[in-house]
Amino acid sequence: MRKTFDAELLELNEALTAMARTAQDAIDVVTESLSTDDEAHAKAAIDMTASMDQMERDIENRCLQLLLRQQPVARDLRAISAAMKMVTDLQRIGDQAANIAEISLLFSRQGEVKVPQDIGVMACKAGLMVRQAISSYTGRDVETAHAVVNLDDEVDELFRKIKGDLINQVADNLDEADLSIDFIIIAKYLERIADHAVNIAQWAIFCVTGEL
Amino acid sequence: MRKTFDAELLELNEALTAMARTAQDAIDVVTESLSTDDEAHAKAAIDMTASMDQMERDIENRCLQLLLRQQPVARDLRAISAAMKMVTDLQRIGDQAANIAEISLLFSRQGEVKVPQDIGVMACKAGLMVRQAISSYTGRDVETAHAVVNLDDEVDELFRKIKGDLINQVADNLDEADLSIDFIIIAKYLERIADHAVNIAQWAIFCVTGEL
Repeated sequence: MRKTFDAELLELNEALTAMARTAQDAIDVVTESLSTDDEAHAKAAIDMTASMDQMERDIENRCLQLLLRQQPVARDLRAISAAMKMVTDLQRIGDQAANIAEISLLFSRQGEVKVPQDIGVMACKAGLMVRQAISSYTGRDVETAHAVVNLDDEVDELFRKIKGDLINQVADNLDEADLSIDFIIIAKYLERIADHAVNIAQWAIFCVTGEL
Repeated sequence: MRKTFDAELLELNEALTAMARTAQDAIDVVTESLSTDDEAHAKAAIDMTASMDQMERDIENRCLQLLLRQQPVARDLRAISAAMKMVTDLQRIGDQAANIAEISLLFSRQGEVKVPQDIGVMACKAGLMVRQAISSYTGRDVETAHAVVNLDDEVDELFRKIKGDLINQVADNLDEADLSIDFIIIAKYLERIADHAVNIAQWAIFCVTGEL
């Protein structure tokens, strides 16, 4: 019985890791899509986030099966409840990436668009946070989880900077204000992605320490 | 057998209607919360959207039970597959309302904030679209579904107007630019809510006509 449980837990971890990797890939692809007038990238990102819906259901089912059949206690119970919560955050991350992809599709109809470099940096950090957060859970690694929480301060700071820069651009160049506003909205979506990664990291910490 | 199926379908409709009403209430409450410095409204809206997660699971379970036990065909099969898709849109609507509530919580720490009237109008229309979209499904009412799709043009137009007005405010008053940007982001969330209502209306049409 115990062996089956451990094997199933391992599979659960693999499923979560795969979903986190898909989230990170979707963030990468959608960021790349912003600066090209080829719709294919944005559409690929939308497909990736859609596949995350199925992954979410699969992971929830695994968790429910583990809860119902194995009736775990203490640390194992925490691990599975944490996974149930995390998968919702992962799915919300997919939603935010899909929201960015929708804006990217509008961009691709306008021809080539010059994306502020900071948005690329922010996307890179947000994607890293997602993957590290899940890895802190699967590895029961509190230190990495805290690193994710700290990285969020950098992302928040970047968001403030991007917002400030773009607000000045709006004031300087009303003709391109729409584009600047779209970039602020994209940065806001990335900031939310980082927030969800922090939630995941906090569940990872709960899983080890039992503290919320 | 048939009677049970119809009774279960009725219960499914009631569950969807309740979820749509909660979505509309959450949009109302969160909009009200924007102009008060009392955190209670924003927190109430967050609680409402959290309760929608449980509703989503319940509705998905009902759909799965109906699919597996009753093996419906033709129109009934369309009705249940449509419900499965709609509930995802309803949940996304809850997410957007929760995103607005997060901004509202930040507002409440800044004291009273004057919300542009158009945002209230936009929220009211978006909430109405959500409830009408579900009602067009439960009533198999293609006409109402088309009315929802048409209302989306008005919401899009309002979004463009709000964005234009606020961009001008940013240019005129850089000191309050942050607040203007937050309003644009809120309007963007409302625009997404309306988009999800359109998706629901299109599923309602599919349910009757079989056309996607």
